[in-house]
Amino acid sequence: MTGMSGSDNRPMTVSEKIFSKASGTPVKAGDFVLANIDLAMTHDITGPLAVQGFYEIMRDEEEKKVWDPSKIVIIFDHQVPADSINAAENHIMLRKFAKEQGILNYDVYEGVCHQVLPEKGHVLPGDLIVGSDSHTCAYGSLGAFSTGIGSTDMAAVFATGKLWFRVPDTFRFEVEGKLPDRVYSKDLILHLIGDVGVEGARYMAAEYAGSTIRSLSIPERMTISNMAIEMGGKAGIIEADEVTEAYLQERIPGYKLDPYWKSDEGAKYLDIRHYDVSDLEPQVACPHNVDNVKPVSEVEGTKLDQIFMGSCTNGRFEDIKIMADIMGDEPVAKGLRLLVVPASKTEYMKLLKAGYIEKLMNAGAIVESPCCGPCMGGSFGLLGPGEVGLATSNRNFKGREGSAESFVYLSSPATAGASALTGEITDPRKV
Amino acid sequence: MTGMSGSDNRPMTVSEKIFSKASGTPVKAGDFVLANIDLAMTHDITGPLAVQGFYEIMRDEEEKKVWDPSKIVIIFDHQVPADSINAAENHIMLRKFAKEQGILNYDVYEGVCHQVLPEKGHVLPGDLIVGSDSHTCAYGSLGAFSTGIGSTDMAAVFATGKLWFRVPDTFRFEVEGKLPDRVYSKDLILHLIGDVGVEGARYMAAEYAGSTIRSLSIPERMTISNMAIEMGGKAGIIEADEVTEAYLQERIPGYKLDPYWKSDEGAKYLDIRHYDVSDLEPQVACPHNVDNVKPVSEVEGTKLDQIFMGSCTNGRFEDIKIMADIMGDEPVAKGLRLLVVPASKTEYMKLLKAGYIEKLMNAGAIVESPCCGPCMGGSFGLLGPGEVGLATSNRNFKGREGSAESFVYLSSPATAGASALTGEITDPRKV
Repeated sequence: MTGMSGSDNRPMTVSEKIFSKASGTPVKAGDFVLANIDLAMTHDITGPLAVQGFYEIMRDEEEKKVWDPSKIVIIFDHQVPADSINAAENHIMLRKFAKEQGILNYDVYEGVCHQVLPEKGHVLPGDLIVGSDSHTCAYGSLGAFSTGIGSTDMAAVFATGKLWFRVPDTFRFEVEGKLPDRVYSKDLILHLIGDVGVEGARYMAAEYAGSTIRSLSIPERMTISNMAIEMGGKAGIIEADEVTEAYLQERIPGYKLDPYWKSDEGAKYLDIRHYDVSDLEPQVACPHNVDNVKPVSEVEGTKLDQIFMGSCTNGRFEDIKIMADIMGDEPVAKGLRLLVVPASKTEYMKLLKAGYIEKLMNAGAIVESPCCGPCMGGSFGLLGPGEVGLATSNRNFKGREGSAESFVYLSSPATAGASALTGEITDPRKV
Repeated sequence: MTGMSGSDNRPMTVSEKIFSKASGTPVKAGDFVLANIDLAMTHDITGPLAVQGFYEIMRDEEEKKVWDPSKIVIIFDHQVPADSINAAENHIMLRKFAKEQGILNYDVYEGVCHQVLPEKGHVLPGDLIVGSDSHTCAYGSLGAFSTGIGSTDMAAVFATGKLWFRVPDTFRFEVEGKLPDRVYSKDLILHLIGDVGVEGARYMAAEYAGSTIRSLSIPERMTISNMAIEMGGKAGIIEADEVTEAYLQERIPGYKLDPYWKSDEGAKYLDIRHYDVSDLEPQVACPHNVDNVKPVSEVEGTKLDQIFMGSCTNGRFEDIKIMADIMGDEPVAKGLRLLVVPASKTEYMKLLKAGYIEKLMNAGAIVESPCCGPCMGGSFGLLGPGEVGLATSNRNFKGREGSAESFVYLSSPATAGASALTGEITDPRKV
C-alpha cells in the first residue's frame, strides 16, 4: 500500500512516509502521532505482562478481544524448552491467550522471533511494526519501521491497535566501498556503533544507505538493522530494493515491491555520516559496552573460555557457514566451549542438510536447538566469574551472559570461527 | 582379575565375589567390609560437595592428593551448558580440581555419565564402582557391582580409595520367554518394579538372569540395571557373557571375558522370582511413583503435553531409533512437545549419520545436545502446573520434571513413539 506525501509535497524520509501512512495524515519528524500498528510481536518473557495489562485495560469490556488477532504474533524463544516452572507457566498462559484470541503462536521449537517473523513472511516494507523486545528494530532490514516497546505499551496495542509516537528524526549512514575479505556486515555495524556511541542515534531512525548496504544480502542486512538499538536508534531501516523483493517473493507468492517506500531526494536528516569500508578491519566490541569497539588487531590473543555462535544478530545459515568454513576440518581449541545455536528451525534444517551440524559437532561444538540461547544469560551457556566469552550476539553488558564478573566480546562469525580454532581472539584474515 | 572363593568353598553370588575381591577376604552377604574402589564417578551437581569434603578430610595433610586420579572420572551432564551462574561456578571449580589432581574430566559436551562411562570403556565386569548419582547401578549391565553414594562418602573415596559396605543380599530375577513385538526391556523392568514395589529390593543386589536377559543387547541391559534403584536395589547386576565381551572388545582391544564373574550354582539368594514375559504388555509407570505400573491398555488415551525421549535409561541410538521408526514419516501430534535428548555425543552422532536427527526434526521434535535434559527437572523442558508428560527416563516423582502440580508417566521408547503421533498415551502395538 502506498502512503501519502506531505500536503506541501515536502520530501520525506522513509520513516516519515511510514508514520504518515500509519497515522493517516502527512507528518514530519518531531510530530506526535497516534499510529495504526501493522504487526505486533510479543514473546515468552515480555508477553505475560502484556496479556495481564491487556485484561486490565479491558476490565470493563464485555468482549475482551484484541483489536485484530491476525496482526499479532506470539512466539516462544527466550526460555525454551521451558527452563523453569515459571517459564512453563508463562508458556501455558500465552498458549491459552493465543488460542482464545485466535492469535498465531509459534511454540518452543520455531526459533528466535527476529528470525522467524521475516522468514515466515510477516514483515513487509512500509509496515509499522512493534515488538516487546529491544531488537525488534531488526525488521528494518526489509524496509519496515520496526521498534521495540514495553509490555504495557504492548497491552495498549493489543487493545486498540494504536500507539502514540513522536515521529523520529533520521540519522543517515551512507556507506560506500567493498568490504574486504573476511570482513562482514557485523564488523560494519560494530564500527558504526563505535563511531557514534551507544547514544549516537538516540530516538532516531538509523537509516543505512549507500552502495555497500545495497550490496548486502538480507541476512547481512538483518545484522545491521538488528543492532540499531545499540546506538540508541528507534529503528534501523534499510530501503527495500530488488534484494528485498526477491527475499519476499520466496515467502509471499507474487509479491511486488512498492518503490514508494524509500526516502525522497532532499528529505531532511538530522545527521548524515559517510563511511568508506574498503579498508575496514574486523571489529570487536569489548567489555562492557557495545560501543567499546576496537579493531581485532588490538585485542588479538585474548584468551577465551566460550564462544557463542548464534542469536538474532548472527545465527543464520550464512553466519554459521562462514564460521564452519573458516574452521575447515580443524577441531575446536582444547579447553574452549563452542556453543552453536541456529536462529530458527528453518536455518537449523538448512545447516543440517548441508552437513554443517555434523561438521561442527565433529569439531567439538555443542549444537543446541533454535532459541535465543546464551544471549541474554538466562537459559544455558552462562559464563562463570572470571570467564571470558566471545559472542556473535548484540550485547556485552556486564553480566549479560552470566556472572557480573565475566567478560563478553562481540564479533562477526568469521572472527568467532578463527577464534574457535585457537581459543583466543583471532583475526580471521590470518587463518 | 579373578577374585577368591570363600575359604569354605561356599558358592557365592557375583556380588559376594566382587566384595571378596574388593576387600581382600572371602565375604558373604551381611558382612561388613572395607572395600577398595575400582572406579569413582562424580558429576557437576554432586561433585562440588565431594571436592569440598575431600579438602576437609585432607586439611592436615601437606599433600592434598586423591588416592588414585586414574580411578576417578568427573563428568558434566546435569546442568550443561551451564544453566545458571552457580552451575558455571561448579564447572569452573571441578575443572580446576580435575586439572590439579590429574583426573579425567568429561566436559559439557560429552553426555550423561551412565552412558559415557561404559561407552568409553571405564566399566569392567567384577569392578566395584561408586558414583555420586543414584542411577550408578546402571553399570551392573556390564557385570560390575556399581552403586550410588552421597557426596560425603565420595569425599572419603577420593581421600582413601575405600568405603565401608554391608555386603548386600541378592534378589534374583529369573526371566524367561521372548518379549513380544514392540515390548522392550523398559517394559520388563517397569513390570518387575511394579511387581516388587519401590522397596522390594531395598539394599539388595538385584540380579537379573534367565534366557530373556541373556538375549538382550547391552543397551537393553543398561535400561534394566539403571532402574534397580527404583526397587530400592543397591545394585542391578547382570552376569557378563559373550554379549558383554563383544561390547567391551569394541572399546578395549584384546579384552577377554573372565568367566569367574558370575554367581555360582547354589549361591544363596534372599529371594528369587520367576517371570515369563511371553505375554507381557507394554508397561507404563503412572504418577507419582515408579512402582505405580499399569499395562498400557489401562492408561491409553491419557492426553499429553510433552514427551521426553532420552536419559541414561533410554537415550541411546537404539532407543531413539525405535521411537523414530514407529513414527515413520508422520508428524508429532499438534499441541504436543517432543523433546529428544540423546544420552551422549557418540549416540547423537550415530543418530545424525543415520538420518534420525533430521527425520525427528522434520517431524516436529526438538533435539537438544546430549545431557540429562528434563529428567531431573532442572535445566530445560520443565512441565508447568497441570501439564502431563510421558518420559522414557527413570523417575516420575511429584515435581520431578517441573511443577509439583504436573504429572509424569514413564514408558518405553516404543510407547513414546506411538504417543508422539497421537498426543495421548498410545499402545505401540496399535500403530
